[in-house]
Amino acid sequence: MTGKVYLVGSGPGDPELLTVKARRLLDEADVVLHDKLPGPEIIDLIPEARREDVGKRAGGEWTPQEYTNNRLVELAREGKTVVRLKGGDPFVFGRGGEEMEHLAENEIPFEIVPGVTSTIGGPGVAGIPVTHRDHASSVSFVTGHEDPTKEESAVNWQALADTGGTIVVVMGVGKLPNYTKALLEAGMAPDTPVALIERATWPDMRVAMGTLDTIVNVRDEEGIKPPAITVIGEVAATREKVQEFLR
Amino acid sequence: MTGKVYLVGSGPGDPELLTVKARRLLDEADVVLHDKLPGPEIIDLIPEARREDVGKRAGGEWTPQEYTNNRLVELAREGKTVVRLKGGDPFVFGRGGEEMEHLAENEIPFEIVPGVTSTIGGPGVAGIPVTHRDHASSVSFVTGHEDPTKEESAVNWQALADTGGTIVVVMGVGKLPNYTKALLEAGMAPDTPVALIERATWPDMRVAMGTLDTIVNVRDEEGIKPPAITVIGEVAATREKVQEFLR
Repeated sequence: MTGKVYLVGSGPGDPELLTVKARRLLDEADVVLHDKLPGPEIIDLIPEARREDVGKRAGGEWTPQEYTNNRLVELAREGKTVVRLKGGDPFVFGRGGEEMEHLAENEIPFEIVPGVTSTIGGPGVAGIPVTHRDHASSVSFVTGHEDPTKEESAVNWQALADTGGTIVVVMGVGKLPNYTKALLEAGMAPDTPVALIERATWPDMRVAMGTLDTIVNVRDEEGIKPPAITVIGEVAATREKVQEFLR
Repeated sequence: MTGKVYLVGSGPGDPELLTVKARRLLDEADVVLHDKLPGPEIIDLIPEARREDVGKRAGGEWTPQEYTNNRLVELAREGKTVVRLKGGDPFVFGRGGEEMEHLAENEIPFEIVPGVTSTIGGPGVAGIPVTHRDHASSVSFVTGHEDPTKEESAVNWQALADTGGTIVVVMGVGKLPNYTKALLEAGMAPDTPVALIERATWPDMRVAMGTLDTIVNVRDEEGIKPPAITVIGEVAATREKVQEFLR
């Protein structure tokens, strides 16, 4: 009897931002496969005996994606109810799409449990609306940490600048100088507001504010480290307008 | 003693996709201001005596945004704990930004509680990952139902097409012919996969599949009605690859 795999988003890190369904499945699953991205507070909710760390980290030790894919199939074939817990939403730069395809190819029943994406919820709790009737009719999400096996950048920064909407970059601390330069060259104003949100919704969350021109210096002065989200656009300035009453 | 306002995302409609925090606040709030977007199953969770409908609907009766803004301030000044419940995430095309600014201008303490956005969670439960390592390095969200007071379209469809990433349109059933035409004129391939997800995660959710070329006919044949989400890009085809094992 084949089990079932749930691809579950954990949200940005605050355990109260888990969905009711994710919270239930963490209690009911036979095994939870996770990496570091859900954050320590959420991982601590899962009894150690029922969790497996398949984490990978840029620049550090990592588990090949193939291992995770195969492990999901193996556990389901043992009849287990498996949760694959992913930071944020499983389908926002999380390779959840590949995991889902691998499950279907191996005839494993699965279900998708969306989560609060850090790309929206992170700015949100900091008082930054990614869309705004007055400032942003669209919002684009892009990864700053490109797949190193790709021959050239798949990201068209010129087109993103031309949308006129908000740009949110995930995994974009290291490459901040590269893409801020690309956006300036694409014609965006140097005084375009930019916010860096480090460890969004975690107890030690930090927010740093600057502009396309200054944000690299701000990052260095304040020592902003991954994981962090970059918000580029007029909406980033909203935080300063509302911060006094933001709880 | 001033109360507090929580701007809360309800997620796409399935009550189990509320966050743990949203679920708790619905029980604790003195008053919940809502519209129709959270969907019937979630609205039914709130006792009638503690809810106020400030809903507005395109083409139907509606409550001016100003009324909602003022009502939030009024209730908070009475010392109430107020939840402003918004469909999806409060900051994705929901005018949450304006509500937040109005609260800050009136010195009302507030907190943001992000939710699962229908723009990601809707496609997700249908087996469509909005980003994918092989197909989409970026994803852009736009509204198909533009503010009629704006003089010209603020959406640059050419730039969105040029990103090469996934395009997700909310409130885009009625204007589907307009923006599919704009994207074709912008050079997107006529056979680009397109999915329409009607009432995502609600018990009567439906999904219709087509291409940039065919989707207007598909919409008409299948009678797809708002609320629905349009997903444009290679990722939309993922559903057909995995659907047999999607639960």
